[in-house]
Amino acid sequence: MNVLIVVAHPERASFNGGLVDIAVSQLKSAGHSVELDDLYAERFDPVERGEHYVQRSNKDYFAPLDEQRHHYNEKALPADIQRELARLEWADLVIFQFPLWWHAQPAILKGWLDRVLVYGGRYSSRMRYDRGYFRGKRAMLSVTAGSPEKTFQPFGRAGNMTAWLWPMHSSLYYVGFDVLAPQVSYGVQGGGIEYQKEDVLREHLEACKQRWAARLLQCEREKPIPFAGWEDWDSEGLLVETSPWRWRLG
Amino acid sequence: MNVLIVVAHPERASFNGGLVDIAVSQLKSAGHSVELDDLYAERFDPVERGEHYVQRSNKDYFAPLDEQRHHYNEKALPADIQRELARLEWADLVIFQFPLWWHAQPAILKGWLDRVLVYGGRYSSRMRYDRGYFRGKRAMLSVTAGSPEKTFQPFGRAGNMTAWLWPMHSSLYYVGFDVLAPQVSYGVQGGGIEYQKEDVLREHLEACKQRWAARLLQCEREKPIPFAGWEDWDSEGLLVETSPWRWRLG
Repeated sequence: MNVLIVVAHPERASFNGGLVDIAVSQLKSAGHSVELDDLYAERFDPVERGEHYVQRSNKDYFAPLDEQRHHYNEKALPADIQRELARLEWADLVIFQFPLWWHAQPAILKGWLDRVLVYGGRYSSRMRYDRGYFRGKRAMLSVTAGSPEKTFQPFGRAGNMTAWLWPMHSSLYYVGFDVLAPQVSYGVQGGGIEYQKEDVLREHLEACKQRWAARLLQCEREKPIPFAGWEDWDSEGLLVETSPWRWRLG
Repeated sequence: MNVLIVVAHPERASFNGGLVDIAVSQLKSAGHSVELDDLYAERFDPVERGEHYVQRSNKDYFAPLDEQRHHYNEKALPADIQRELARLEWADLVIFQFPLWWHAQPAILKGWLDRVLVYGGRYSSRMRYDRGYFRGKRAMLSVTAGSPEKTFQPFGRAGNMTAWLWPMHSSLYYVGFDVLAPQVSYGVQGGGIEYQKEDVLREHLEACKQRWAARLLQCEREKPIPFAGWEDWDSEGLLVETSPWRWRLG
């Protein structure tokens, strides 16, 4: 399969960068094609704004979705967005590699969603969820977090990791991706926060890398996260009475 | 009180901009001081990267938290970050005005968290949650969303709004803010998505503005969202057995 790795970390030599290297080598050795999409290295601009659009349908008032649709229809999307869309077209699996910053992805990746998933072209009121544009493709988050794993459990101080990744998982499903369970590497300490001795940390990080290497060889066979779909909703967008999703907590 | 309004919308004449105007006039007429912090107008750069730091403690390897702490200690933080921190210092209440894009805040505001809430200066392993730097100050999100309110309920297709705002609410609490319930204006349609006729929409938006105007006059007396705090956690960061938070769903 074709695997696109979207990377959102400012330091290529970081632990995140190391996980990227592992993914490239493991996937290639398993016979897959791999392309890197390093948002920092390419200086991707994550801020959606009027200046990106050269054939404005309304020069006096900037409505982002209007201009996205207009420029998609006119084949006049910004060059960086056209490049990102071509990469997604090529990919069977998209891996997003990033550190958890403030309970979410770094801004450069948040803005990748804001700008690349263009209204009119990659989603519309009818083309979304299980009828989304990217249906048949898979996506997976590979996330690093500073605090130890136990604090990210429901009883833990750092909050439930499921909740922190739920917005991005939902965005990917919204445009049709089958979203695999994320790969989370906990206790990855940048910034001189020292919970543990250096040799213990080194050993822990090595174990994280080995888990990731093993996971990559099996992810092609994994089932995606279950989501409700069009058959579950009535015409107003509410779960019908017989939908089993009415009886799932959370 | 002193109210800082942080705005993250690319079009000042938008409905979001209209809500800002209402906040300014209502709060001023009630005797408060108001300052605007328009991230788009100021061309705030939301991407945390090495180039922002002029006195790098490590020029070969960029560790964001290390450099944040180092530059905070050396009083050498980037000028835009110093300006933002001074604004927060001044404020008693911070209102964040933004549209919900991809189940979260726009990238320009996500990066405001990434860059402004500096490690070492505004939080540390001991200075967070109910011992956070900003304790005593209040924060509130004012959010617009395109889909109708009913689809953002737990049974709705657009997902539970509580979940979409939970990461940012948690980030604000992490640095010590008392977080008020958000003001959510649903069914605010940009981008030519038309669920309803124009006059019905106009009336609906007018009602949203009036709700906001009324809310602003009472928010000073509101109680914040409840969160677990240091007394609830053991030394490993897990809820102690007698913490009532063990028995709250979600």
